[in-house]
Amino acid sequence: MQVHSFTLEDVRNAMDYTLLKPIASKEDITKFCHETIQYDFKTIFVNPYYVEHAYALVKDHGIKVGVPIGFSLGGATTSTKVQETKEAIKNGAVEIDMLINLGALKSKEFSVVQQDISEVVKASNGLLTKVIIETALLSQEEKITACQLIVEAGADFVKTATGFNGGGATLEDVQLLRETVGPSIGVKAAGGIRTFENAVKMLQAGANRLGTSGAVEIITGNLSTSSY
Amino acid sequence: MQVHSFTLEDVRNAMDYTLLKPIASKEDITKFCHETIQYDFKTIFVNPYYVEHAYALVKDHGIKVGVPIGFSLGGATTSTKVQETKEAIKNGAVEIDMLINLGALKSKEFSVVQQDISEVVKASNGLLTKVIIETALLSQEEKITACQLIVEAGADFVKTATGFNGGGATLEDVQLLRETVGPSIGVKAAGGIRTFENAVKMLQAGANRLGTSGAVEIITGNLSTSSY
Repeated sequence: MQVHSFTLEDVRNAMDYTLLKPIASKEDITKFCHETIQYDFKTIFVNPYYVEHAYALVKDHGIKVGVPIGFSLGGATTSTKVQETKEAIKNGAVEIDMLINLGALKSKEFSVVQQDISEVVKASNGLLTKVIIETALLSQEEKITACQLIVEAGADFVKTATGFNGGGATLEDVQLLRETVGPSIGVKAAGGIRTFENAVKMLQAGANRLGTSGAVEIITGNLSTSSY
Repeated sequence: MQVHSFTLEDVRNAMDYTLLKPIASKEDITKFCHETIQYDFKTIFVNPYYVEHAYALVKDHGIKVGVPIGFSLGGATTSTKVQETKEAIKNGAVEIDMLINLGALKSKEFSVVQQDISEVVKASNGLLTKVIIETALLSQEEKITACQLIVEAGADFVKTATGFNGGGATLEDVQLLRETVGPSIGVKAAGGIRTFENAVKMLQAGANRLGTSGAVEIITGNLSTSSY
């Protein structure tokens, strides 16, 4: 089997550098934004409260700000997700990573799940939308169904995990998501990606975005390796 | 030192029976509501998406529905918390457990923290409000400051933890919160309370509410013990 090669630049360009931990202070966010500029990452994710602050720091450097929506239990209502999305966009966010309604999915209320996604897509008004399905909490059948609902709802990406519910991205899940959605939408692998080698494997498995809080370590720990 | 006695009924009346796990289905919520009726618990907490469903099941049994607001990372904006609160109340919630803005607290932006709480208190329009400070993530000084801000903002309770950020209620924290707020507002101990003995110790330490997903076990595992 031929395996596609990915360079350090490919990994750098694919990474959404992420700082969502609850105890992050404004000073931590500032440092994080400076690192983003220093290492030339393309997109950052911070919690809604910090979007405005982060946007002010990175907007003149061509860096995009993304935001998690409905984190991290999956039990928010659609109208709250829509309100949170609109406010984050107003504050500077241009990528929207929403958590799927896990309860509705588990309850087989598929029209609720799809409507929830399509309302957020609509509120995003053409901006990039990613839908997190929290793979570690789903059966194989639920993962496939979730992918289908996401495609039908018009979102731009399916994403593996929030990183907060006990399971991250596995190669098997990334492959399954890519096989299910085909080339029609993106696949973002997130949760536990900490090394350059792992990042490359996720891209080889079919991911085209990587969410990680370890972007600096991924890049600096592997400066001697320019390609896999 | 004289220790106050608490009966099984005291514990039953103090418990907020809680089901917030991300994979809970509508069927799980239905079973949970039936248990609440069966064991005569007074208050239940479900995620915002399930408030309407739970309310329909318990409203004729004198049971109150509460809702977590801004769960579980502490990085939601005030306007999202306010929107989420208003919608939950419209759907039947009468107790509001909001997560404090942890980032603002860590950043020493105390006026932001207080304003965030007072806006939710205002949106709650006289209904009971509890503010979670996530004790496991705070220094002693931050815990005390948070309590003071909560009292000043006009909330009804300080609450230890969400149960989702790596630490629950400790006796030391419950004592500290009670010492700090005095008799002026309530103290809710939540996170990891699983036995009748532990529940009683939390009440003895100064809590007057207990948040737990183990309410049935707490009651049924100790039917032979009527008082401590």
